[in-house]
Amino acid sequence: MKCAVCRGPAVIDLRRHNANFCADHFLKFCRDQVVRAIDEHDMIEPGERVLVAVSGGKDSLALWDILLELGYDAEGMTIELGIGDYSAASTDAAVAFAERRGRTLGRIDLRRDYDYDIPTAAAVTRRVPCSSCGLSKRHLIDRAALDGGYDVVATGHNLDDEAAVLFGNVLHWHTDYLGRQRPVLAERIGARGAGAGTRVFPRKVKPLVRLNERETAAYCVLRRIDYVVEECPMAEGNRHLRYKEALNAVEAASPGAKQAFYFGFLARAVDRFAPGADGADDDLRACARCGSPTTGDVCAFCRLIDQVGGHDPVPVELVRPRRGSRRRRAPTKRPSGQAATGARNSAGSAT
Amino acid sequence: MKCAVCRGPAVIDLRRHNANFCADHFLKFCRDQVVRAIDEHDMIEPGERVLVAVSGGKDSLALWDILLELGYDAEGMTIELGIGDYSAASTDAAVAFAERRGRTLGRIDLRRDYDYDIPTAAAVTRRVPCSSCGLSKRHLIDRAALDGGYDVVATGHNLDDEAAVLFGNVLHWHTDYLGRQRPVLAERIGARGAGAGTRVFPRKVKPLVRLNERETAAYCVLRRIDYVVEECPMAEGNRHLRYKEALNAVEAASPGAKQAFYFGFLARAVDRFAPGADGADDDLRACARCGSPTTGDVCAFCRLIDQVGGHDPVPVELVRPRRGSRRRRAPTKRPSGQAATGARNSAGSAT
Repeated sequence: MKCAVCRGPAVIDLRRHNANFCADHFLKFCRDQVVRAIDEHDMIEPGERVLVAVSGGKDSLALWDILLELGYDAEGMTIELGIGDYSAASTDAAVAFAERRGRTLGRIDLRRDYDYDIPTAAAVTRRVPCSSCGLSKRHLIDRAALDGGYDVVATGHNLDDEAAVLFGNVLHWHTDYLGRQRPVLAERIGARGAGAGTRVFPRKVKPLVRLNERETAAYCVLRRIDYVVEECPMAEGNRHLRYKEALNAVEAASPGAKQAFYFGFLARAVDRFAPGADGADDDLRACARCGSPTTGDVCAFCRLIDQVGGHDPVPVELVRPRRGSRRRRAPTKRPSGQAATGARNSAGSAT
Repeated sequence: MKCAVCRGPAVIDLRRHNANFCADHFLKFCRDQVVRAIDEHDMIEPGERVLVAVSGGKDSLALWDILLELGYDAEGMTIELGIGDYSAASTDAAVAFAERRGRTLGRIDLRRDYDYDIPTAAAVTRRVPCSSCGLSKRHLIDRAALDGGYDVVATGHNLDDEAAVLFGNVLHWHTDYLGRQRPVLAERIGARGAGAGTRVFPRKVKPLVRLNERETAAYCVLRRIDYVVEECPMAEGNRHLRYKEALNAVEAASPGAKQAFYFGFLARAVDRFAPGADGADDDLRACARCGSPTTGDVCAFCRLIDQVGGHDPVPVELVRPRRGSRRRRAPTKRPSGQAATGARNSAGSAT
């Protein structure tokens, strides 16, 4: 097995590209794919300040590393989710990378700063954990980017992620989601009321859409970046993973199928689902509580805090998804003013 | 397990409908689903003459049986494909059903009537067998319907088929196929040249789109209809079956996923892929050879006959798909006028 570039011994074979690479040329391949994604989709302009959403997994650390290698001014932001050992290890990996590269890593701890965590939120809302987790991360990263004056938020979504989300969206024909599933979401300017004329959402970009998760993992290994290998224990058995498995079966028989699926969608279909040009931004107003843009009076994040903040922590083990039983008994909220008994609850709510 | 209708002992559970049925109410359920499909999509008007494309498998025989039970004037048409024992058994099943119901079954034998068969066509064209098979069946059934004065052609495509085709079409974003993937294809009237003002394509309908293949099989078993159980030996390992497997994995975890996928597409997406209203029919002209509508000078069927007619038959066993080897050596054509040596070649070409 020889490197397609230098004919030296190859360390990885990429079936969908019908090519093998040595370590150096594989790392170059990864950087080139990111450069191409950034260029083709106008993700980041030279000199812009980038906030990388860092989980501590292979994708976000590879992304941060590549952006730094490419010379971007990229700082990190991580959210401590309170998912037991998994979250602790994730934060450790993110902190270690930031220290090694001498870069700033912003940190929010859901329990310390907002008096909840993801297992407790899942138990109280009786919804899949990924629901409150995604909502929390989006809200807090967007807010941090706006407050910190960053031009753009970069997330580590890779080709496998995007293809699986796309598969889920076409399985249900969520036409609104399909119309927005692009590797770049433009920033949005408030149209009226509080926030009018100012940025209410930062631009958000996915520079890893041309790399799959095997490739980002190999990138980290070759770059000696320690990342959390385990999947989130709360995501086990979720739909997104099932969609990945279904697509993996197709990809195994037809290498390149996922790439054709995702980029074919961008080339020939996404525009057909675009919302009307009448500007849905007009419906956005400032959240009465936190000022974030929302279509209602109070944003979804503040409503989540109202519902789940101040509950005693529920251990991960009690919330793990069990097939066939989606409903669980919700924990009771402790009376206002009473101290939390859970060890992870070290501070009051920030809201 | 009790019947959802009469509370008698149930013989089948339908997870996606969250219901069990006894034999009588399951048969009624199947008929009701066909009635609903016909009504919702304006497939067949009372009194119209229907030509059912009959393979001898569970779907086409269930379809023919249900249409007869519902009082439609439905006759059958079968194409003998020359796929060894499989084709022989298929024809036997179709003939037996027609005799039992005292109905007309038209028969075309590719080798007898056109001097080729599907294994030979696959070997000569070096393409997957399903390619020449689908082309041949579509052409000959359409032609038979027009020549026989039938109002509509009914095919046995079920929900699993349509969902798998849809999955393949979105995986590749074949936007033209997506725009035409409906349970009814309207008849088309020639716009100019030979055939102008007359029907050049019959209306084609898929009344089984609300039933899956487990249901059509159960229908046949309960109605004591003998059908060919084996899958076509030449389809083994083809993409369509892989797409079915991938969707089956999703369906197993989320009963109803396929139905939501297919009917969600019809409700919210297919119109977005519709061809412009400028009428692609204008591009259709009569095939210089057979008079069938085509966008070129000679239709795809006549070109297939030119290429594959008159070759010595290639046994199925030599053409079976082998993973990883798509190319095979094409057999040589016998000189014009020389008799075929193959046992199945009992007549000269019809074209």
